[in-house]
Amino acid sequence: MQTQATSTELASKVQAARAAARRLARLSASVKDRALELIAEALHSRAGEVLEANSLDYETAAKEGLSEAMLDRLLLTEDRLAAMAGDVLNVARLPDPVGESFDARTLANGLQVARRRVPLGVIGSVYESRPNVTVDISSLCLKSGNACILRGGHEALHSTKALATLVRDAIAAAEAPADAVQVIESPDRQIVQEMLTCRGGIDLLVPRGGEGLIRFVEENATIPVVTGGIGVCHTYVDAQADIDKAVAIAVNAKVQRPTVCNALDTLLVHRQIAPALLPRLAQEWGGAGVEVHADKRALAILGPAPLLATAPATEEDWGKEFLALVAAVKIVDSFDEALDHIERYGSGHSEAIVTEDYSRAMAFLDRVDAAAVFANASTRFTDGGQLGLGTEVGISTQKMHARGPMGLRELTSYKWIVMGNGHTRP
Amino acid sequence: MQTQATSTELASKVQAARAAARRLARLSASVKDRALELIAEALHSRAGEVLEANSLDYETAAKEGLSEAMLDRLLLTEDRLAAMAGDVLNVARLPDPVGESFDARTLANGLQVARRRVPLGVIGSVYESRPNVTVDISSLCLKSGNACILRGGHEALHSTKALATLVRDAIAAAEAPADAVQVIESPDRQIVQEMLTCRGGIDLLVPRGGEGLIRFVEENATIPVVTGGIGVCHTYVDAQADIDKAVAIAVNAKVQRPTVCNALDTLLVHRQIAPALLPRLAQEWGGAGVEVHADKRALAILGPAPLLATAPATEEDWGKEFLALVAAVKIVDSFDEALDHIERYGSGHSEAIVTEDYSRAMAFLDRVDAAAVFANASTRFTDGGQLGLGTEVGISTQKMHARGPMGLRELTSYKWIVMGNGHTRP
Repeated sequence: MQTQATSTELASKVQAARAAARRLARLSASVKDRALELIAEALHSRAGEVLEANSLDYETAAKEGLSEAMLDRLLLTEDRLAAMAGDVLNVARLPDPVGESFDARTLANGLQVARRRVPLGVIGSVYESRPNVTVDISSLCLKSGNACILRGGHEALHSTKALATLVRDAIAAAEAPADAVQVIESPDRQIVQEMLTCRGGIDLLVPRGGEGLIRFVEENATIPVVTGGIGVCHTYVDAQADIDKAVAIAVNAKVQRPTVCNALDTLLVHRQIAPALLPRLAQEWGGAGVEVHADKRALAILGPAPLLATAPATEEDWGKEFLALVAAVKIVDSFDEALDHIERYGSGHSEAIVTEDYSRAMAFLDRVDAAAVFANASTRFTDGGQLGLGTEVGISTQKMHARGPMGLRELTSYKWIVMGNGHTRP
Repeated sequence: MQTQATSTELASKVQAARAAARRLARLSASVKDRALELIAEALHSRAGEVLEANSLDYETAAKEGLSEAMLDRLLLTEDRLAAMAGDVLNVARLPDPVGESFDARTLANGLQVARRRVPLGVIGSVYESRPNVTVDISSLCLKSGNACILRGGHEALHSTKALATLVRDAIAAAEAPADAVQVIESPDRQIVQEMLTCRGGIDLLVPRGGEGLIRFVEENATIPVVTGGIGVCHTYVDAQADIDKAVAIAVNAKVQRPTVCNALDTLLVHRQIAPALLPRLAQEWGGAGVEVHADKRALAILGPAPLLATAPATEEDWGKEFLALVAAVKIVDSFDEALDHIERYGSGHSEAIVTEDYSRAMAFLDRVDAAAVFANASTRFTDGGQLGLGTEVGISTQKMHARGPMGLRELTSYKWIVMGNGHTRP
């Protein structure tokens, strides 16, 4: 296979990663898990050098006037390193996806056929200035037998390099190939474009970042990508909803962690239940500091609520991912109007109904086209850890390859294994 | 979702297909199967109009000097239509993949979680002048709940249109959306480029054709594609092989249908078994009209064989997909040399070992990176029908989404279904 990478840095790192990938594909689970344990240990024992590199990045970024939110994402602390180490150990404890057989059967002619999981090969990732992503993706790729080529934000370059060095040392100490993890150091954006067209060099690219990055990748990649992470999430409270459950779910989905993709953006409320539901919700949301952008009918109920900040909703509020303590609220006349709204404005991430009407619940689960659909539960559960995958690389909103949370298995392919005894095709 | 298609024809057909796809996703298996039965009936009852359209294409193509092989692919006959009808009925008899649940579990918190299969949406296909592909892809897409947009070779346009009309009429007669099947009529090649970048309009593109088409698609597509169909297939006869099995497998893999992707291209023979194996094989292959391009050592054994046409192998013979009664033969000194040769020259399609050595067989299945790996069986079994999928859209040699034969399930995605009782995330 040939790579079309033209830059020297990408070409040499692709070559090293591909050589490592061939060895990684055949590593035993115990070697991979040992490497992961050593990474976790080093995140404690070598915290000093990582924090030193991080403070270089942080000071430069602060001088350059990065936003508070960006600076917070960039910042590493002993506690954050300890949390990263915990995540790495969680990955070590998961079952090895590589080598798992499925769909095994014996055909009528006696051929033994099965599919066996294999790594994808080399995973590329382009992400912003969040140093923890370096360790997350390295450990998930290692466990699933893949090499990775990482291109983090240039504001985090010292941190990324320090973490990657620590990871590579730990992998080598476990007698696994350190070249499993490659970091692109060049700040040249052209290298991202090269990664996106590096057929035969990078088997899958997973971008992690905001809408601008995702769109850029979608429009320019000619290698396979899995994109996602943009969640315009609706919760629809049906006429027959249990109001206690509806309030609990709407509060959890909006308030528990408002800055993430599976948080509630728009609440749709059936007009019959709005007069009973909205005042109760106004009290809870208001107490939690939620600001509401409501349509005319909802505003008539919510507007007078003490504590709650309200504003009239505009067209821009529908289909907006707020990533903050802001929710849009709309009253709908029917179940079908709710479905139409979700189809028009949703991003195919996570959508929920709250209802005690069995047929409505089933119809919602059936008809809504999204990575995850919920009946009587918070959309915050769209998460690899919460749904039983142990962890996740990201959340896919595309249909090809993997949809929803991507765990270890979603970083694999399979091959057909056919065992015969001199079988020929008639 | 928006499509970026700029041509009026593609834009209007994408719009019609997407509307149909929404309905198709929710059709019952019985309606889909009824439509398939009506297609099969029409391939008999309306054979006249299809053959008339086909003879228009055929006469024009013959005048324009198309090759015999191309003309044969283009030609339809009553028998060929009957065979197509049989294939459609086979698809009707397969289980409906849509709605199948898997990985269902109840989490510790009581949430009921499962993945449920859903159609991909709109499948695009670009193919050459083989009218049967129109019916194959239409019926597989229909059964899996997908709409399709078909762009066949312009030499077959009358045939494609006649078949698509018949298919659409049958779908409508079953009260399913006829717009499920869209045919691009414009001969403008620009429309293929537009299909390849039609994000949000076409969910998956499956090219079917030769290497030129596949490369063009790989280099230009920014929508998801599944490519494959190019098979440089090796059979390695190990030192410990059973010679009867080795001869039977090598003959079957080369001779049974030499023009297809899973036929044998290169035979690798361990030097210890070559003197016993090759004279026997020369007799069988020679009798079947196989021409051999052999390396120096193999030629020394094969050259004197009566009946067998031989020539010295050149570097171009390794890694060549012959698609004809031609085989390359090379003697190797070791198992590792065979593995290295396959890694270097294989296309990741189908690779086989013939051996009675258990550990060698297991090592081969483990180490060779291909869509299908065989021990003691002919590579001709890489086929959806043969491997128990009922049928196939094509054979993927990529690792993303699906690998090897693509049946109905491989034309689906899934969504996560989560059922709670007021569950919120702690």
